[in-house]
Amino acid sequence: MKHVAVFGSTGAIGRQTLETIEHLKHDFSVSALVARQNVPLLARQCRRYAPAFAVVTDAAALPALERALRGTRTKALAGREGMEQVAADPQTRILVMALAGTQGVFPVLAALRLGKRVAIASKEIIVSFGREVMALARRHGAEILPVDSELSAIHQCLEGRDPQEVAHIILTASGGPFRRVRDTSGITVRQALNHPTWRMGRKITVDSATMMNKGLEVIETAMYFGIDPDRIQVLIHPQSIVHSLVEFTDKSILAQLATADMHLPIQHALTWPRRLPGLTRAARLDRIARLDFHAPDVKRFPSLSLAYRALRQGGAMPCILNAANEQAVQTFLQHRLGFDQIPQVVARTMRALPNPPKPGITELLRFEQAARTRAEGICEQLATRHGSLSRR
Amino acid sequence: MKHVAVFGSTGAIGRQTLETIEHLKHDFSVSALVARQNVPLLARQCRRYAPAFAVVTDAAALPALERALRGTRTKALAGREGMEQVAADPQTRILVMALAGTQGVFPVLAALRLGKRVAIASKEIIVSFGREVMALARRHGAEILPVDSELSAIHQCLEGRDPQEVAHIILTASGGPFRRVRDTSGITVRQALNHPTWRMGRKITVDSATMMNKGLEVIETAMYFGIDPDRIQVLIHPQSIVHSLVEFTDKSILAQLATADMHLPIQHALTWPRRLPGLTRAARLDRIARLDFHAPDVKRFPSLSLAYRALRQGGAMPCILNAANEQAVQTFLQHRLGFDQIPQVVARTMRALPNPPKPGITELLRFEQAARTRAEGICEQLATRHGSLSRR
Repeated sequence: MKHVAVFGSTGAIGRQTLETIEHLKHDFSVSALVARQNVPLLARQCRRYAPAFAVVTDAAALPALERALRGTRTKALAGREGMEQVAADPQTRILVMALAGTQGVFPVLAALRLGKRVAIASKEIIVSFGREVMALARRHGAEILPVDSELSAIHQCLEGRDPQEVAHIILTASGGPFRRVRDTSGITVRQALNHPTWRMGRKITVDSATMMNKGLEVIETAMYFGIDPDRIQVLIHPQSIVHSLVEFTDKSILAQLATADMHLPIQHALTWPRRLPGLTRAARLDRIARLDFHAPDVKRFPSLSLAYRALRQGGAMPCILNAANEQAVQTFLQHRLGFDQIPQVVARTMRALPNPPKPGITELLRFEQAARTRAEGICEQLATRHGSLSRR
Repeated sequence: MKHVAVFGSTGAIGRQTLETIEHLKHDFSVSALVARQNVPLLARQCRRYAPAFAVVTDAAALPALERALRGTRTKALAGREGMEQVAADPQTRILVMALAGTQGVFPVLAALRLGKRVAIASKEIIVSFGREVMALARRHGAEILPVDSELSAIHQCLEGRDPQEVAHIILTASGGPFRRVRDTSGITVRQALNHPTWRMGRKITVDSATMMNKGLEVIETAMYFGIDPDRIQVLIHPQSIVHSLVEFTDKSILAQLATADMHLPIQHALTWPRRLPGLTRAARLDRIARLDFHAPDVKRFPSLSLAYRALRQGGAMPCILNAANEQAVQTFLQHRLGFDQIPQVVARTMRALPNPPKPGITELLRFEQAARTRAEGICEQLATRHGSLSRR
């Protein structure tokens, strides 16, 4: 029996992780659940899965959690300390990290130091701290597996193959809801949250719409597989059936296909190298009938170019890009920033900050904070303009 | 340096094999060339590649070959004996079998008994003698690799994976030139030889048009990978870019894609498990733009059903099906049989002969001959009718 700690259990990925573990109940069980502050759902999950620990990352929610767990065997914890305790718990073999943004970096580091398997849905952690995180995993013989349809696809296509034999990694992108929209300046929050093929959290849905999500995946790909930016390509594929492709030096391409369903990459990250029957329905190509592909329009979606630039600059720049983007998306979701202003905030933040060559985790965390503060300031300036524009 | 014996060097696959070896000249060289009786081309190839041996399978062509090779270091041989000598030659590490039909089965067996690698383009050998050939390879630690875009695709998708985890193998088919033709009775030889995506020999081009080629690949797939018929599917894919797919039990699908170019599966069979830059151009999905898929129409193409039936019946039936088909295609190419009569000949031959449960090679060879004779008789009957129809 493999015990799994699920970080972000009340979110979309967390809930599907629990469904997957329930489906695989003969081999997997839940040892800990972590959520930000949704105590009612977290408590219901604890009653169903009986973990040893439940953690609220927001310490203010601890008293409510303690009350809700009264009479259960689950121990309530809170904050970074609670998260690290759960990550280091000897019972736990696998940590699934699906907390929003980079807040889960400390428990990830704790689990890696103990040689555990870490399944990462929070791609911001790999984007911002990838070099350090991957180095730590190698040092301690820990496994990092992506919980992400594209990165999981690459993992499956590459499995057991020599990275020297890779010519290109081709990340597919649905193109998001604005694939055909010429002028992106008037796009509303509601429009941005209406993704054509995937149901996901709000932040990643906006990232998909700006294509920053694909940019983050370009950076992730470089970090996970040690591939340089020139060998990573992006291809628009509206049906979201081909989740990514690897072209080898002999020009043979392997692709991974499946219905758009996160249960599959979640299960792959849990059971790899084994494959077991899962919750995902088969993709029926005879019914899907047609798969389309075209090059992305980087002019209309500058976020993609920004991500390549940050990756090429290296150092703290991917971390700065990610923090600025988080801040900008948050401001957009508060209706205080235009959709087309999100990449402007990112670009300006990247230009505003210096870039140390080989930052450690502590330095990266400082840069992350600095980028957030700077982006916030830029957002405020633009927000005023956006507000006045909106009022016109 | 790996020495390769190329059987069928004057045919389409043979010539591309020589180009591939020339491209890989730092690692591979030619130790023997074998052809039926095209002495002029065989002699030119000998001058270029300087093999130790050249063989004509048709012994009548030996004197001409000896004359043509005067003054070279290449020794002329002939017939089955010559083929087996070349296959057993200790210099030769890899045998590429691309002779038409099953005539190359003896050198294949000789090479396998010596634990060599055999790259097989002559799918008829695997269809007719697959069980015995695969068992022999296992017994002697020999490797058999398919030189065939579909089977090579499956090999690449399956590589290193547990066959227990395979849900379905999905063979793609271009659908041939008559994908949209309702009435196949009036199809001429010229029309049948005009394949939309592949340039190949005459026999395989007709097999593609009847879809018997896909039927033979269904049988081959079962033989190579030990997959039962119910788990092998066929999908029409007119662009011939996705060369086949493997669906695993978790409903994840791996697919292999490439431009339609036999240099790739040839090189894969030579260099596996390594991949090296080759002669095949990259498939540009952004330019190809669209891939289509639909289920095949087994009513209009009964050859596919016949192949499944032969595979399910087992024993000598795949061998009987293949021999009857070879005879029927040959008669069609001589304008003495209708296109739609090819599967009729196969079906009637299959019904006419008994089926031993576990035939050895010798018994299979007897059944092959019996099936040919029987099919020839059926062809004669039908040919008379076809002739009189044509004259009307």
